[in-house]
Amino acid sequence: MPKLITTRTRIADLGKPRIIIIGGGFGGLEVAKGLKGFKAQVVLFDRYNHHTFQPLLYQVATSGLETSSIVFPFRKRFSKQPDFFFRMGEVISINPDQNTIETSIGSVKYDYLVIANGATTNYYGMKDVEENSIPMKTIIDSIQLRNKIIRNLENSLLTDDPELMNSLMDFVIVGGGPTGVELAGALSELKKHVFPEDYKELELSHMDVHLVEAGPRLLNGMSKEASEKALEYLQNMGVKVHLNCSVKSYDGYEVIFNTGEKLISRTLIWAAGVKGKPIDGLNADCITRNGRIRVDQYNRVVGYDNIFTIGDAAVMEGDVSFPNGHPMMAPPAMQQGRLLAKNLKRIIQKKPIQPFRYKDKGSMATIGRNRAVVDLKAFKTQGFFAWFVWMFVHLISIIGFRNKFFVLFSWFWSYFSYDKSNRLIISRNKDGVN
Amino acid sequence: MPKLITTRTRIADLGKPRIIIIGGGFGGLEVAKGLKGFKAQVVLFDRYNHHTFQPLLYQVATSGLETSSIVFPFRKRFSKQPDFFFRMGEVISINPDQNTIETSIGSVKYDYLVIANGATTNYYGMKDVEENSIPMKTIIDSIQLRNKIIRNLENSLLTDDPELMNSLMDFVIVGGGPTGVELAGALSELKKHVFPEDYKELELSHMDVHLVEAGPRLLNGMSKEASEKALEYLQNMGVKVHLNCSVKSYDGYEVIFNTGEKLISRTLIWAAGVKGKPIDGLNADCITRNGRIRVDQYNRVVGYDNIFTIGDAAVMEGDVSFPNGHPMMAPPAMQQGRLLAKNLKRIIQKKPIQPFRYKDKGSMATIGRNRAVVDLKAFKTQGFFAWFVWMFVHLISIIGFRNKFFVLFSWFWSYFSYDKSNRLIISRNKDGVN
Repeated sequence: MPKLITTRTRIADLGKPRIIIIGGGFGGLEVAKGLKGFKAQVVLFDRYNHHTFQPLLYQVATSGLETSSIVFPFRKRFSKQPDFFFRMGEVISINPDQNTIETSIGSVKYDYLVIANGATTNYYGMKDVEENSIPMKTIIDSIQLRNKIIRNLENSLLTDDPELMNSLMDFVIVGGGPTGVELAGALSELKKHVFPEDYKELELSHMDVHLVEAGPRLLNGMSKEASEKALEYLQNMGVKVHLNCSVKSYDGYEVIFNTGEKLISRTLIWAAGVKGKPIDGLNADCITRNGRIRVDQYNRVVGYDNIFTIGDAAVMEGDVSFPNGHPMMAPPAMQQGRLLAKNLKRIIQKKPIQPFRYKDKGSMATIGRNRAVVDLKAFKTQGFFAWFVWMFVHLISIIGFRNKFFVLFSWFWSYFSYDKSNRLIISRNKDGVN
Repeated sequence: MPKLITTRTRIADLGKPRIIIIGGGFGGLEVAKGLKGFKAQVVLFDRYNHHTFQPLLYQVATSGLETSSIVFPFRKRFSKQPDFFFRMGEVISINPDQNTIETSIGSVKYDYLVIANGATTNYYGMKDVEENSIPMKTIIDSIQLRNKIIRNLENSLLTDDPELMNSLMDFVIVGGGPTGVELAGALSELKKHVFPEDYKELELSHMDVHLVEAGPRLLNGMSKEASEKALEYLQNMGVKVHLNCSVKSYDGYEVIFNTGEKLISRTLIWAAGVKGKPIDGLNADCITRNGRIRVDQYNRVVGYDNIFTIGDAAVMEGDVSFPNGHPMMAPPAMQQGRLLAKNLKRIIQKKPIQPFRYKDKGSMATIGRNRAVVDLKAFKTQGFFAWFVWMFVHLISIIGFRNKFFVLFSWFWSYFSYDKSNRLIISRNKDGVN
């Protein structure tokens, strides 16, 4: 059988400036969209063939949404955009001297390069945690977690040993940011509304959801009111919140904390930190300790003229309000992406470019049915109305009418039926790894 | 880390007759449903935690439906049925002398045993075909095929070599039954309506869909009119139909036929046959050459009093219209399941039982947009109206309002947009095997 030739990208030379975007997350997508109709060739590289709406991964993991509702094929999104090219592949290194990138499918020349490859999970060097925990960054992670949660409950039926049962029915979530808080809320809803119907043979009071946060409060990036309300909501739902507590080691069974305390659980979800994933070839001094890339106010990588970095991957210098860079969240990435598309056009047209100013529109997190915390510029709110705001903002942010409709219908359905319909184990092997 | 104890099923003894059902397909589900409210303990064993609506697997494989729309968790289906127990596990063997089954999660006693474990793909001993082709029996098969189709198209962009390109863009479907015919239709719709938008860089005229059938006509179980119309529809859609042609070998690249002809393709879909998957422990003489189990007119396994087999797994003796057993399709399985539930009640109540009579309500297959062939008892029809009948029958057969709604909406959406939205590669590794 002849091997596939995968050393050539076969991207047509259009005789126009070529802008390569690495990564089709929130930031990269905005750059590509912003260049529509402009006389440039846009080439998007991504490891997947679809954009993932990461803020709702936790709902896939907890059986609330089906996978296809929160992902969107790149080719579908850009099928009407001329001069847009997509390539599925991994970018291995950058050669700034030759203006090329090396990828898993060959070498490609660029005129302008946009690094928008986001962030990866940060285990802070703890190899055992990395090996034994489940992160929450990709659609596969969320399917894997869903499989594991349901499989654990099925396995709980097979034992009378209380420790074994606890190890299966207790879930430890590390990281008190939005992902951790929302996941803890969703898991305790499964415990309250879904599992008692499904597992009448089990004593569900044995099931515990632990949320572990190294700092003194949840939702550290939000207001004090939001943090306090989130804590109150979670505790009312029965979530065991451990503040000022961090994980020292985890072997897949025993979680050991810095305080010396221990917990037994076969499921540890790691949502405690992210870091950049720098690509080889850039000057070492433009990479921060956290793996992000230093950029100026135009998102230009320090020391380069035609290489830009946006979103989680970038640390912008000179924004006095954010000395450590903008928050690693969708809004800065999208705003930077939008401005960068405009600036790239201006550069090619030899017009002056504009510096980036982050407009913090606020942030929010939901904690189960009817409850959310929302910090907006104009006002802060918690509870039922906040929950509506949360749903509205997420719904309008999902790409595509069909996906919006499916998510909305799923939410309605869950709301009125107290059901989470996708409690499926879909995997070939026993470990639940797809 | 303590190992999980998986040698005990921990199924409570209710002091009622225990009926164990092996397999939650169309047949097994009817038995369980039919026993609702009766004074018996029903225990369902399945390898998966959900029922799969197999007739629509091909639509998942061709990006038309999302996985969750055609599967349904057993626990959800039976949450309101008292004395129903579900266990996820593989049944390894039967001990008729002790009235027990050995499973991957331990040994369990039964009073009555119902084998409803369906069929598996039959490769007729061709190891190379088994290793290199994709079957169409489980949800994982369909995701794997979807991943492969999309990945092949992505890879086609990376080569100029016409043979390599053909090997990626040509698809060979073996088996001219409903699955093969419907899959061929759906693939040629992708070629016509979806891929030209997605892959403007590719010359899609290179893409060929081959349908290979060993017999002289397609849809062998249906009327001559249906076979002829199906052939005409497929040929009009550009499908290359090879009749009187069977596969001799396939190494993952070169398909060699009994006629000596060859085709080059990296994707061979095997829908050419099924066989029973007998479970160890029954008398050898009650297993047919095709691995099905001989039953009497009450679906009782020949030689046993309290062991029954239904559906694909069973060959009923004494039905003169079907000397080789009933067709291996959903309707006989469902009808047998329904009657067996009634007969089990009668046996336990010491009442006389009723023999099975198959009511052939007809069969159907769809061939892309607007076209289907339908053979009913009352009339035969082909074309647009048949397509409506096909949709209606499938829609009412799917379990659950939510799934019906999602499938209906997806069909509407596809119909008016000519789109198949789920063209996703969702897999961790490069081979597209989930």
